[in-house]
Amino acid sequence: MKILVEELSQRGHEMVVLVPETSVLIGKSGNYTTKSFRVPYTLAELNANLDHIKNNTFENPPKLTDIFGNLGNLMRFTDMQVKACEGLLYDESLMKSLRETGFDVLLTDPFLPCGTIIADSFSLPAVYFLRGIPCRLDEAAAQCPSPPSFVPRLFTGFSDKMTFPQRVRNTLMTVLEKSLCHQLFASFDELASRYLQKDTTYKELLGNCAVWLLRYDFTFEFPKPQMPNMVQIAGINCAKKGPLTKELEEFVNGSGEHGFVVFTLGSMVSQLPEAKAREFFEAFRQIPQRVLWRYTGPVPENAPKNVKLMKWLPQNDLLGHPKVKAFITHGGSHGIYEGICHGVPMVMLPLFGDQGDNVHRLVSRGVAETLSIYDLTSEKLLVALRKVINDKSYKEKMTELSAIHRDRLIEPLDLAVFWTEFVMRHKGAAHLRPAAHELNWIQYHSLDVIGFLILILVTVIFVTVKSCMFCFRKFFKKTQKKKKE
Amino acid sequence: MKILVEELSQRGHEMVVLVPETSVLIGKSGNYTTKSFRVPYTLAELNANLDHIKNNTFENPPKLTDIFGNLGNLMRFTDMQVKACEGLLYDESLMKSLRETGFDVLLTDPFLPCGTIIADSFSLPAVYFLRGIPCRLDEAAAQCPSPPSFVPRLFTGFSDKMTFPQRVRNTLMTVLEKSLCHQLFASFDELASRYLQKDTTYKELLGNCAVWLLRYDFTFEFPKPQMPNMVQIAGINCAKKGPLTKELEEFVNGSGEHGFVVFTLGSMVSQLPEAKAREFFEAFRQIPQRVLWRYTGPVPENAPKNVKLMKWLPQNDLLGHPKVKAFITHGGSHGIYEGICHGVPMVMLPLFGDQGDNVHRLVSRGVAETLSIYDLTSEKLLVALRKVINDKSYKEKMTELSAIHRDRLIEPLDLAVFWTEFVMRHKGAAHLRPAAHELNWIQYHSLDVIGFLILILVTVIFVTVKSCMFCFRKFFKKTQKKKKE
Repeated sequence: MKILVEELSQRGHEMVVLVPETSVLIGKSGNYTTKSFRVPYTLAELNANLDHIKNNTFENPPKLTDIFGNLGNLMRFTDMQVKACEGLLYDESLMKSLRETGFDVLLTDPFLPCGTIIADSFSLPAVYFLRGIPCRLDEAAAQCPSPPSFVPRLFTGFSDKMTFPQRVRNTLMTVLEKSLCHQLFASFDELASRYLQKDTTYKELLGNCAVWLLRYDFTFEFPKPQMPNMVQIAGINCAKKGPLTKELEEFVNGSGEHGFVVFTLGSMVSQLPEAKAREFFEAFRQIPQRVLWRYTGPVPENAPKNVKLMKWLPQNDLLGHPKVKAFITHGGSHGIYEGICHGVPMVMLPLFGDQGDNVHRLVSRGVAETLSIYDLTSEKLLVALRKVINDKSYKEKMTELSAIHRDRLIEPLDLAVFWTEFVMRHKGAAHLRPAAHELNWIQYHSLDVIGFLILILVTVIFVTVKSCMFCFRKFFKKTQKKKKE
Repeated sequence: MKILVEELSQRGHEMVVLVPETSVLIGKSGNYTTKSFRVPYTLAELNANLDHIKNNTFENPPKLTDIFGNLGNLMRFTDMQVKACEGLLYDESLMKSLRETGFDVLLTDPFLPCGTIIADSFSLPAVYFLRGIPCRLDEAAAQCPSPPSFVPRLFTGFSDKMTFPQRVRNTLMTVLEKSLCHQLFASFDELASRYLQKDTTYKELLGNCAVWLLRYDFTFEFPKPQMPNMVQIAGINCAKKGPLTKELEEFVNGSGEHGFVVFTLGSMVSQLPEAKAREFFEAFRQIPQRVLWRYTGPVPENAPKNVKLMKWLPQNDLLGHPKVKAFITHGGSHGIYEGICHGVPMVMLPLFGDQGDNVHRLVSRGVAETLSIYDLTSEKLLVALRKVINDKSYKEKMTELSAIHRDRLIEPLDLAVFWTEFVMRHKGAAHLRPAAHELNWIQYHSLDVIGFLILILVTVIFVTVKSCMFCFRKFFKKTQKKKKE
């Protein structure tokens, strides 16, 4: 979100960014004011929590019950965030000073509950900036229809074209999601109700969102229904910002016609278990490409010469380099869009969260290969890497996808700025708010109407049949009487 | 659509426009090539058909069965269009020359079937430019969900906020629509199947549309789900093009602070029955505003001086004039958007087609009053006119609506050009096509899945109950035996 915050502040808006004291991601900037708040955990505890998730992924085989493991991880993570949020909401002096500032709009990623609760408390219109919320709580809150017949659910690994058994499983997952959602967001619901002193749910609060800025488009997501206040800003993070350093430029050019491969597993994973890392080194030793790898773990003595390990990679600049041949990634949406933007085929190693689903979207388009990190071997990696590099179809399809993604009238950043400013100018976007917000689930799906119509139909049939039988009997009796006479 | 065709041709595209010899609307232009084709009716017959629709409206009271009357009118009109279309499709030399030209895209309003059939026949990607197709065939063809719980149906006059009885009627209308659609488009289906020599329906052909350019937005329509390939270009017709003629400028300025009223009933209605016209003249006599009226009918001797009758009005320029106070209109979407664009409150006299529904959308926003043309009296007209002119709330709400409508990053014309060119560049917009196109109605709504799950549930319950009863009986028998012993 930082790119949007900086752009807004450069266009003359006064931005205040609330940052937890203990954060792994956001830093300070000269362009906006940051206000930090205390959280009841240390950075070590936060990292331990994240490490637990990671280690789980590397060491346990993927299985059907992973969804519950994923859920458990997510709940541990969100519980921590709820605590952080409490730290902010109940920091009375900070909240008082914020309330007195008089903001025009609140910008947040609703994956975490704090922004949404503050927007309600301050009666501020909210603009959401997100990839999505688990169990499609975002779509439910926006009243967006999402037919399970062609919109695959989280963790199913289905594409938008499903067989009958897949549709059955997708429908069951839809039902399961409802109860998972309930558990996952119970702490959000409780905090919101307690702090706002009214009986509410997190979903209900989310429904007040003025505009949803969605970090996806249909070069990545499967085409699905949208609501009028959903705006796609996919690719907002993608821009070839600057040239590489001299050292990097020399390294990647040294690969000659073979080009090079970029390898990162995202901002949260820069180490691997030693045995796992060895498989990567062994595979890289056998390819003619050079490899740039964001890796801070132990290095074997005879590490191949074509691999350059770095603590941090200028990922976007590297993917934009003409010599790049492939991108080995965990499949986070950020990296995926940098890959699509620059048209680089991928080898994907999904780790957790939505990454497994992200990967399926690209594999189904023929622009990526996927491997499981759990049972990864150098052979498997080699096969996949050679495939995406040497089989021309991956590059061709990716180039086409990239062209479609970049063929737009307005840059996503400008679109995000426009809609944020629109909400400020008009104090929301009431004209985009569907009346569905005033319906409950039964009403929304017209189940009450269908029930009522069936009841009438059954009554009419019943009365008709009974009347006919009555008439028939009367007629029959008369006939019998006559016969007797 | 002319504005888009002219813009495309100015941007260097070669445009060929197919025009029936007998047309009431489109003219020739230096900017594009027109090719005309024979139609099996005369202009007089076409006008007689339209007159029938009009007279019906002026002389019969509105009633519940109007929907069938409307349908009848529509069917007479579309039957004529189907004949026109046959004239084109079976004009072999014209079709041959078109086929040999090698087009990149076909642009059409799918309200009429010809363009869609040609697109299929020539294997051309199609861009549709439309306000809508009766019985929401456009939404059905685009696979767009349209929950009857908050999307009001045609001819119901409901807003998006419905009571339970209204939702019941709306749902029934949804069912009725299906059968109406079937009748209304039977001739389209037949022509398409016959000409393309395959078993198809018009809806199926429509589903191949690459991009839907929709002449509405949510300052007018109620917020509802959209599909990824739907693009809103509302207001494409609205631009203050030029100043008024000296004569007109003098007339409207002569009204002083009271301003003036613009009155037209659309391009198809420039006359009224004499008695009806008298009511208008009498009402206008009693207002301080001047009135510009597009009217070619008989004029009473003592016609009021503040009324200027004209054969043709520069409607958009007049509505953009600072002294305009109100717009009396039949509620066609074209005029409505000119009114919204310039922020002019309206008095609406819906005549036929979608106009009744259009009117409800503006009335529910508090920016217009509506009257029935059938029982219109000068008193009723006066009350409505004075209300929208003197009650400040109409102007205020309309100004707000206008500001929201015009607050956009891209002009609708540029958007329409972009998407047309996008389809030309990428030979369609396959990435926006939902997989729902491969599902039938039952699959789309997961009725097969729900049926299957219910079957399983019932079976499980049945088996469980039977087993329990079996065990219970066995146990019961044993106990009885023991007792006997």
